Amino acid sequence: MGKRKICVVVASRANYGRIKSVLFAIERHPKLELQLIVEASAVLYNYGNVASIIEKDGLKISATSYSIVAGENLVTMAKSTGLALMELSVLFGELQPDIVVTVADRFETLATAIAASYLNITLAHTQGGELTGSIDESVRHAITKLAHIHFPANEEAVSVLRQLGENPDRIFNTGCPAIDVVVEALKKDPGNLFQKYGGTGNILNWDEPYLVVLQHPNTNEYDQSEGIVLKTLEAVHKAGVNVVVLWPNADAGSAEFSKEMRMFRARAKDARFHFYRNLPPEDYVHLINNCACLVGNSSSGIREGAFLGVPVVNIGTRQNCRQRGANVVDVEYDTEKIYSAVMTQLEHGKYVSYPIYGTGTAGEKIADILSKCELSVEKRFFHV
Amino acid sequence: MGKRKICVVVASRANYGRIKSVLFAIERHPKLELQLIVEASAVLYNYGNVASIIEKDGLKISATSYSIVAGENLVTMAKSTGLALMELSVLFGELQPDIVVTVADRFETLATAIAASYLNITLAHTQGGELTGSIDESVRHAITKLAHIHFPANEEAVSVLRQLGENPDRIFNTGCPAIDVVVEALKKDPGNLFQKYGGTGNILNWDEPYLVVLQHPNTNEYDQSEGIVLKTLEAVHKAGVNVVVLWPNADAGSAEFSKEMRMFRARAKDARFHFYRNLPPEDYVHLINNCACLVGNSSSGIREGAFLGVPVVNIGTRQNCRQRGANVVDVEYDTEKIYSAVMTQLEHGKYVSYPIYGTGTAGEKIADILSKCELSVEKRFFHV
Amino acid sequence: MGKRKICVVVASRANYGRIKSVLFAIERHPKLELQLIVEASAVLYNYGNVASIIEKDGLKISATSYSIVAGENLVTMAKSTGLALMELSVLFGELQPDIVVTVADRFETLATAIAASYLNITLAHTQGGELTGSIDESVRHAITKLAHIHFPANEEAVSVLRQLGENPDRIFNTGCPAIDVVVEALKKDPGNLFQKYGGTGNILNWDEPYLVVLQHPNTNEYDQSEGIVLKTLEAVHKAGVNVVVLWPNADAGSAEFSKEMRMFRARAKDARFHFYRNLPPEDYVHLINNCACLVGNSSSGIREGAFLGVPVVNIGTRQNCRQRGANVVDVEYDTEKIYSAVMTQLEHGKYVSYPIYGTGTAGEKIADILSKCELSVEKRFFHV
Amino acid sequence: MGKRKICVVVASRANYGRIKSVLFAIERHPKLELQLIVEASAVLYNYGNVASIIEKDGLKISATSYSIVAGENLVTMAKSTGLALMELSVLFGELQPDIVVTVADRFETLATAIAASYLNITLAHTQGGELTGSIDESVRHAITKLAHIHFPANEEAVSVLRQLGENPDRIFNTGCPAIDVVVEALKKDPGNLFQKYGGTGNILNWDEPYLVVLQHPNTNEYDQSEGIVLKTLEAVHKAGVNVVVLWPNADAGSAEFSKEMRMFRARAKDARFHFYRNLPPEDYVHLINNCACLVGNSSSGIREGAFLGVPVVNIGTRQNCRQRGANVVDVEYDTEKIYSAVMTQLEHGKYVSYPIYGTGTAGEKIADILSKCELSVEKRFFHV
Repeated sequence: MGKRKICVVVASRANYGRIKSVLFAIERHPKLELQLIVEASAVLYNYGNVASIIEKDGLKISATSYSIVAGENLVTMAKSTGLALMELSVLFGELQPDIVVTVADRFETLATAIAASYLNITLAHTQGGELTGSIDESVRHAITKLAHIHFPANEEAVSVLRQLGENPDRIFNTGCPAIDVVVEALKKDPGNLFQKYGGTGNILNWDEPYLVVLQHPNTNEYDQSEGIVLKTLEAVHKAGVNVVVLWPNADAGSAEFSKEMRMFRARAKDARFHFYRNLPPEDYVHLINNCACLVGNSSSGIREGAFLGVPVVNIGTRQNCRQRGANVVDVEYDTEKIYSAVMTQLEHGKYVSYPIYGTGTAGEKIADILSKCELSVEKRFFHV
Repeated sequence: MGKRKICVVVASRANYGRIKSVLFAIERHPKLELQLIVEASAVLYNYGNVASIIEKDGLKISATSYSIVAGENLVTMAKSTGLALMELSVLFGELQPDIVVTVADRFETLATAIAASYLNITLAHTQGGELTGSIDESVRHAITKLAHIHFPANEEAVSVLRQLGENPDRIFNTGCPAIDVVVEALKKDPGNLFQKYGGTGNILNWDEPYLVVLQHPNTNEYDQSEGIVLKTLEAVHKAGVNVVVLWPNADAGSAEFSKEMRMFRARAKDARFHFYRNLPPEDYVHLINNCACLVGNSSSGIREGAFLGVPVVNIGTRQNCRQRGANVVDVEYDTEKIYSAVMTQLEHGKYVSYPIYGTGTAGEKIADILSKCELSVEKRFFHV
Repeated sequence: MGKRKICVVVASRANYGRIKSVLFAIERHPKLELQLIVEASAVLYNYGNVASIIEKDGLKISATSYSIVAGENLVTMAKSTGLALMELSVLFGELQPDIVVTVADRFETLATAIAASYLNITLAHTQGGELTGSIDESVRHAITKLAHIHFPANEEAVSVLRQLGENPDRIFNTGCPAIDVVVEALKKDPGNLFQKYGGTGNILNWDEPYLVVLQHPNTNEYDQSEGIVLKTLEAVHKAGVNVVVLWPNADAGSAEFSKEMRMFRARAKDARFHFYRNLPPEDYVHLINNCACLVGNSSSGIREGAFLGVPVVNIGTRQNCRQRGANVVDVEYDTEKIYSAVMTQLEHGKYVSYPIYGTGTAGEKIADILSKCELSVEKRFFHV
Repeated sequence: MGKRKICVVVASRANYGRIKSVLFAIERHPKLELQLIVEASAVLYNYGNVASIIEKDGLKISATSYSIVAGENLVTMAKSTGLALMELSVLFGELQPDIVVTVADRFETLATAIAASYLNITLAHTQGGELTGSIDESVRHAITKLAHIHFPANEEAVSVLRQLGENPDRIFNTGCPAIDVVVEALKKDPGNLFQKYGGTGNILNWDEPYLVVLQHPNTNEYDQSEGIVLKTLEAVHKAGVNVVVLWPNADAGSAEFSKEMRMFRARAKDARFHFYRNLPPEDYVHLINNCACLVGNSSSGIREGAFLGVPVVNIGTRQNCRQRGANVVDVEYDTEKIYSAVMTQLEHGKYVSYPIYGTGTAGEKIADILSKCELSVEKRFFHV
């Protein structure tokens, strides 16, 4: 009996941090063989070239796939998903995995889920059952209905999966692997990250307070993208402290966001702003753990942020319904309101830890279940 | 205020009969404009060239799209879905519909749902909430989670949609449009269909009893496709009555099925078998209404068959969990058992009508709701 | 120093016979490693499933690719080429061959040429420089302009390649590998092929005279495809001898051809016609070598037929300008004229051999050159 | 008799300037109807969003298509060509043009040529027959072999087309439409372009001497892309005058180029460098006409530059064999040599005009021929 082949698809910068501990746990497991596919925005320089970070971490990539159709609008987002589906179908056909693991809810993730389920391959899904609003939630639940094994992050998510009619015996509350990375990262002193990484913009002081801005376009509001991120930049500029800005992900609207960010940078040359494309997952944890406030709409504020007690200003509707700790202040797209919320958080300082999304042992648990679970693509609807 | 643009995607032979009454109701509605896309197997000669039947029926096709990657296996099924997704994204971008309507649950249907929802277009879905087992059910529920407006066929389906967390205000129990076609068809005398249509094989007598065979590959059992349809053909051959055979749909495994059917035909030259690629929806209704027994695994036996009281021998697992009337006898893939079940049904004759899937008024109801419903792509999960 | 990796792409039934001796010569060569990609219609059952014949011949396939978009019209022919280009780009990127070999001139072959040349891989091309008229000739010359190494079949082709501005030092007159298969085949007694292979239709007698019909759609005349092949079938039927019919290739128009062939077969049930999808290359040689006359528009009548002295009736414009022996009688699309030409050829019997396309040593020569030639993608135009 | 439908495909920033006068001449012509498709990098913000410039110029776009697969390497360049081929096949099928016009030689242009010729549409080609070395030349000649009507820029190109075997009656020496734009532009005073357009970087003085840098990756040397553009930037920086830099096109290697350009900019903050993504064709003419020297490897230095007498430093092999005036100094990839050549050109100043590529009347001539030429897709090889 050979090892079980577990194929994990990493499709974006965010994906990697959310599955990294699982990848290493699979790699270490005596009964499992890791097949790692890196694709979509995870192979692109503009989105932080996750593939090269993965290789530096010592993982072997089985296949890479270029599937993003350039344009960063709604049509290209859908086309990119179609192209990813075509490519993953071929790759799964070649690699013949026993189980495919898909991460969370981004648009390309649905391609992974369809390719695996149409090829009669057992599909495992992390972060299912979370409620957030926006297309991400619809995608997440659609993936759940195609998946055979579920690794939700907490009991609330478990109960949503049950209502969705999934087999209770195939739902495993493992916690979220993103928290594993946090726990691991906190064991080490990162040193001065601002000296370690390049990026562009002015050089900041690691020991002074700084804000982190990470704001993605909300695809549900694609036609209102204009001016959105500018409000945030103006608000944090006004706050008068150092600012680290991360570029947005590849969702529809990101070209507009990037354009506004570049124009702001050209205009406010002397602002104490520094820009990064991507940091390795652990260093991202340190970056936000050390910051005075995380501003934007990244789920990391709500997920990793809750565990770390990082003050967060969450802007707009993208994380609408996500379960959150007291560390999060929600505001609208309004420069003044963002500014006030940032000032409030600066004053408050660190929060206590809210371990809503697990305690840091998800990777091992997931690998263990993957090594033992039944390989079956049969599903039926469970009435509650 | 212009008319609402309603874009309906017909992707297969089966799709058309299940949405035809809706198409005509939209066409007639003063506040609606029909945008009809015909794609996937619905534009292929081998699968009955539905596009030409639609044009003969007097409907104007807005766009056709060739999206089937040849090969009829699991990989090409997934690739075809990816290609359909790429093409539909472009078409929806051009046509700018207010609402997209997607039909039921076939593999390409998920492409329609993704393209519409990723483009922030309100998505309506017919036949949601039905339980059947197999990948079709997973696909159907995944589409539900992407859809904004639901037109289920009966109360059982409504209750599944509610458990799936859909907004009760956007679930409309209209009955299934497939039954509209049945009711309409029964108003007319079709005449002798065997004289009306070509097909291949020996000429049959319309007034003698005949069986209809319609059996599709079950993609969940793709690797066991070999020999499956042959058992059915041998069983009905043994029954000693006339037989009308319809070619299978485009699912993975259909090349194998077609090959076995052609080889059987070559071997059993004198058998009283006649083969059709496709009949218009109403004539298909007459064909099965007039038959002594419908044999295979088509959902039409269970859906239209229930309403018509047609004796059905349902083979294998494809319709496992579908709600059915007493007209259906279920059997395994076994020549002897199929033969016995056919003989039992021949002896029993017609059943009473079981109006499980509606009463024939779905088209009008759906068009009416489409003309009035809120256009919104916001969704949230409704706890039960 | 490792072996040179030579990647050969087989895209159709016809491709295989024209490159088979090269494949085996590469396989045997101590300094070469064969990477064999089988794709396009060569992986489809309907077009003779060349992949399975290749495997029976003992060759290892490195990758298969499904790239045919179903529809068999001009649009799907072009789309299929685009899809093949996307897939081959990925495969060449993975396989990293030193040289790619592309065969002749079919529509998908251009995809091979583009993928290789855009990836800066040295591209070798067989059968360049031949003049035939129709889109095939344009495609063949376009490939020549992308290719770096040329293996034309005769001096006439060499002189065309020179006029096209190719480097004389990279043009090698090796003869056509198709003739290698002929020479090899003639060394063995095939036995009774009609007993060896299945096919459909009536059983024929190997020792009676028979015609072979192989007619492909002419894509340049796509809109006049209707009725074309029917004329041929009626003419050969009238000739009153046994007939072996091969199904057409995957070019635009082949669905129409197949339909007419099936309808003819249904109508003329008792005709002494037998149908094959594909025979292995050597058995195809025996089939036409043993036949009374080859009817249609296949280049094999003109190429292999010249060497074998097979009487050929060549119909229509598809082989318009191809260099031919006296064994070929050209006729228009006209039942009476085809009939007369067939009767003339039946009366004449076998011709002498015209070794226009080589003498049977191309495979070894080509492998040898591939092992030694300069690997370079630099090209410049040579003035004559 | 309706108007002839002429479909022109604009695939890049460079394409537009080279076909603009033809577009307007078609638009004005009483017997022609323009169908304008804008696709590939011409619809992307990062490559100057040509589509929006076209719309500002008052032309109506019939269809846009997103066909660039992100990644900017050789594989994605080939994949993008495949995707463009798939999309253009569909668009030509819908638009049913009488003639398709394809421009010059970029990688996506071959997709236009294949789609048109496979669909049996008469294909016209501008800038055929030019000799340049590199893959561009191979692509240009491959397109010639697929094209039916040729609009070369000068007699040298005509003689190459004849050697390539093209029909002399379908070769029309019209001059290059790029020169039309130059002639038109020179009639107007552009004013201060540096005040008119945004861009990024330091503000320059229109009346001081400045260099223009436009350097594209050479795909034939893709694996040596690193460090190439940096040498140029350092050389021009050392020259000590103002510098306008344009971003490179979408060829493989452009991500590397862009990265080095951004890093140089971050490092040399105070350098008198200004960056533009794109200027409308006429303003680009003014930009280089007014500059002290054009540095890089753009064909515009050699084509438009010859006519304008602009001093050009042409770097590397990309324009190797292109016919040029005395205004061009060729250098290798070497900072010192580039620097010296720039200094020499600064000293020399403007050259006389070399009207190698036409005199500014190509647009009208081409439109006129398109309105009268035979519509035929028949081709045969003409021996010289």
